[in-house]
Amino acid sequence: MESKDVEPDLYDRRCGSRQVLDRIGDRWSVLVVLALAAGPKRYGELAGRIDGISQKMLTQTLRGLERDGLATRMVHATVPPRVDYELTELGRSLLTLLAGLRAWATGHLPEVEAARARYDART
Amino acid sequence: MESKDVEPDLYDRRCGSRQVLDRIGDRWSVLVVLALAAGPKRYGELAGRIDGISQKMLTQTLRGLERDGLATRMVHATVPPRVDYELTELGRSLLTLLAGLRAWATGHLPEVEAARARYDART
Repeated sequence: MESKDVEPDLYDRRCGSRQVLDRIGDRWSVLVVLALAAGPKRYGELAGRIDGISQKMLTQTLRGLERDGLATRMVHATVPPRVDYELTELGRSLLTLLAGLRAWATGHLPEVEAARARYDART
Repeated sequence: MESKDVEPDLYDRRCGSRQVLDRIGDRWSVLVVLALAAGPKRYGELAGRIDGISQKMLTQTLRGLERDGLATRMVHATVPPRVDYELTELGRSLLTLLAGLRAWATGHLPEVEAARARYDART
């Protein structure tokens, strides 16, 4: 779907908005963007902050965020060179939404866990 | 992590809030919940609405939403029996957030596509 011609349609698999949803809905992308909310971080800092992310997945996620214009990779001319990742303005525009997702996930955890226990008990 | 003892921590892979994030961040779950926003729908209506979803994936997604307490499956005593899916109150509490994700995805699509074109041109 050409996004210039008609309204983007999330339900249409050919529409780019669906790929954008995949990015902002991706678990690792959400965690990396939230981890960058407070300011630039080095690769190793991100790896240490996000429990369970593999090196391969962190690299892929950062590359995806960079490609989508949500984060930038900055190489500082120090010895040895230091590489930081930082949110772009576009990336920062996601923070309110993602903080809302985080708040929902943590705030409704007891209800979701209770629902799971009920479901598992009857199946 | 016991959610009763300490604050839920999205960054801890053992924390249930991370699994909740996986659900609300899942592409298909988002599309199904949004498709149910206007009211109950039958399986076939959902399959027809969500372009590209396989039968297996739709069944899995609906089961996951039911297990997490976000949707219910209602069997009506008609001949033949009719099966509807409907959001629970918990599921409805997600709608504002997901509508925000949808609006971001469609509204920022041109910027994301431009960023991708720039990235792909230099790599």
